[in-house]
Amino acid sequence: MSKLPNIINLVKKDVRELKPYQVENIPCRVKLDAMENPYHLPESLMMKILEGVKRVEINRYPDSIASRLKGIISSDVNVPIDNIIIGNGSDELIQLILNTFGENGDRVLFPTPTFSMYGIISKSLSLKTEVIPLDENWELPLDKFLHKIEKNKPKVIFISFPNNPTGNSFDRESIIKILQKAPCIVVIDEAYYDFSRKTFLPYLKEYKNLIILRTLSKIGMAGLRVGYLMADNEICRELNKVRLPYNSNAVSQEIASIILENRVEIQKQIEAIISERERLIDGLKGIKGIKPFPSETNFILFKTVKDGKEVFSRLANSGILVRNFGSDSYLKDCLRVTVGTHEENNEFLDVIQKSVV
Amino acid sequence: MSKLPNIINLVKKDVRELKPYQVENIPCRVKLDAMENPYHLPESLMMKILEGVKRVEINRYPDSIASRLKGIISSDVNVPIDNIIIGNGSDELIQLILNTFGENGDRVLFPTPTFSMYGIISKSLSLKTEVIPLDENWELPLDKFLHKIEKNKPKVIFISFPNNPTGNSFDRESIIKILQKAPCIVVIDEAYYDFSRKTFLPYLKEYKNLIILRTLSKIGMAGLRVGYLMADNEICRELNKVRLPYNSNAVSQEIASIILENRVEIQKQIEAIISERERLIDGLKGIKGIKPFPSETNFILFKTVKDGKEVFSRLANSGILVRNFGSDSYLKDCLRVTVGTHEENNEFLDVIQKSVV
Repeated sequence: MSKLPNIINLVKKDVRELKPYQVENIPCRVKLDAMENPYHLPESLMMKILEGVKRVEINRYPDSIASRLKGIISSDVNVPIDNIIIGNGSDELIQLILNTFGENGDRVLFPTPTFSMYGIISKSLSLKTEVIPLDENWELPLDKFLHKIEKNKPKVIFISFPNNPTGNSFDRESIIKILQKAPCIVVIDEAYYDFSRKTFLPYLKEYKNLIILRTLSKIGMAGLRVGYLMADNEICRELNKVRLPYNSNAVSQEIASIILENRVEIQKQIEAIISERERLIDGLKGIKGIKPFPSETNFILFKTVKDGKEVFSRLANSGILVRNFGSDSYLKDCLRVTVGTHEENNEFLDVIQKSVV
Repeated sequence: MSKLPNIINLVKKDVRELKPYQVENIPCRVKLDAMENPYHLPESLMMKILEGVKRVEINRYPDSIASRLKGIISSDVNVPIDNIIIGNGSDELIQLILNTFGENGDRVLFPTPTFSMYGIISKSLSLKTEVIPLDENWELPLDKFLHKIEKNKPKVIFISFPNNPTGNSFDRESIIKILQKAPCIVVIDEAYYDFSRKTFLPYLKEYKNLIILRTLSKIGMAGLRVGYLMADNEICRELNKVRLPYNSNAVSQEIASIILENRVEIQKQIEAIISERERLIDGLKGIKGIKPFPSETNFILFKTVKDGKEVFSRLANSGILVRNFGSDSYLKDCLRVTVGTHEENNEFLDVIQKSVV
């Protein structure tokens, strides 16, 4: 007992083997790497926000159940308050779901490529990850997926709908078959719902194993860290036991409430992003050496004939930051560009045209 | 595979057995239940905060490593930035530590009574909790504690210093012996450091198994959810693998930075709280039927000759909310009052005097 062990040996084996997750901070002029809304809030809304922040008693603990914010979301989505849980971003809700349902060694299933946090968080919680590669059209291979469910008995399945980073929404009927046949929790992550307008909300009552994830990050509030989930009462009751009582801070609750109460302002921005997305896809289609994939999100994945890493570097050298997936074998020579403002998209199209020559 | 299981059977056994954690929202006029700083920020500081909030690009993801806030804290405490991790409140850091070191069935040791979240979070993560009751002076029984360490081999030990809810700081030499002999992570939670001015920071280099927790919640920023920990590089590296990359939101980072840059303002409030605490203890000592315990925090635990629940109700009926520990066998007829403003404390003393008759 007197000899102290090496600290590293106290760390869980699964964590020891994890690589540190690095958020790259590459300086840039045009930031199109993180699916952020490129627009600022109108001045009038900012004034309302500042009045709201002034009212927040920051010396007091926040409302543990975020009543006001949940009330606003509840009216928007027509789901009762008790079926909604607010998280410190969707990331925290993914962790919450896994901490509630997943025990040491349990399996978590998702397609690949998809949102990297499903795998990263699972591994950090000592859960085993199982993946099914998407087909050449980025579609979910249903039979293989169902077979994997039967064989590996996952505790939790994650489906990003539409999928990040491919941009497409998987076939609805395939997902319904998964909901019907999977004897486990099925999380449908609708992070990009505002850009696809496709949802599994109507199925919430029918499928007790369904959890729908949403986030405010893609529509202009990434800095606030507000995500939410919707699920059956029974699921919410269990998740709320594991949820930290003050996981959502008072200022973010206030600002998000005010912005959602003035939804018309962000709705304009969302429509501008959708329209710019279509223009950007058309622009990319017209460039030789680039194949853009269809998108129902606020980003576009595209493949370059030329080495993707080189194209990424050329863009970066011009001050334009996109996301490079060089190290992912399913995404060889693929880059992901977030839809920016009209001017940013023009600049991007201009520079990429020269970069792929 | 076609028959769906009852959802509840998918939940981890340890979570199923947990009771939901309820934050009680009892309406009150004088809120003295939650160790909050009772003072508001001066108007001049609020203006700086609003200017700061206006500058935050809430459409962008926050700084993942909270460089500015960590820089300010680093100068304050004289600990390098790389040895500091910011959390969404200390709660999240407790969960982070347990998720990094604790595997299914590992043991977590702490004295009792202490901060309830050590036990609640441990259980939600399927870790076994071991407790050692404090002695009649709320002191840590060192031999029993060391024996328990040897026998049960905990992965993590939590020591609240000073201790919540008893208010005292345990003997420093006892804690040093624990640090020397425990072959595991020892977390010293200095949530009330600003009121005790006692710290284990000078031991951080010597004991590689030491993690020190601090929070901004008790000094006026409970609504922001900002906690931080300080530890050896190796521990920080592993914790950062499990930490969610955007766990600290941009607005809280901004506001906390501005308040800490104007520390003189909160320092005045802290000194007022300490001075009121002494006045409150003296006042309670003068009331027959009440035994206040010494405090190095911003709250006072006291025992009533009369049934504690009844005293609590009488206070509540007068609009004064304190914390009742009725259900805890170690805290029979004990109530905890947070130090309020001068006027709030006067009102509390006035009402409690009549309530214990």
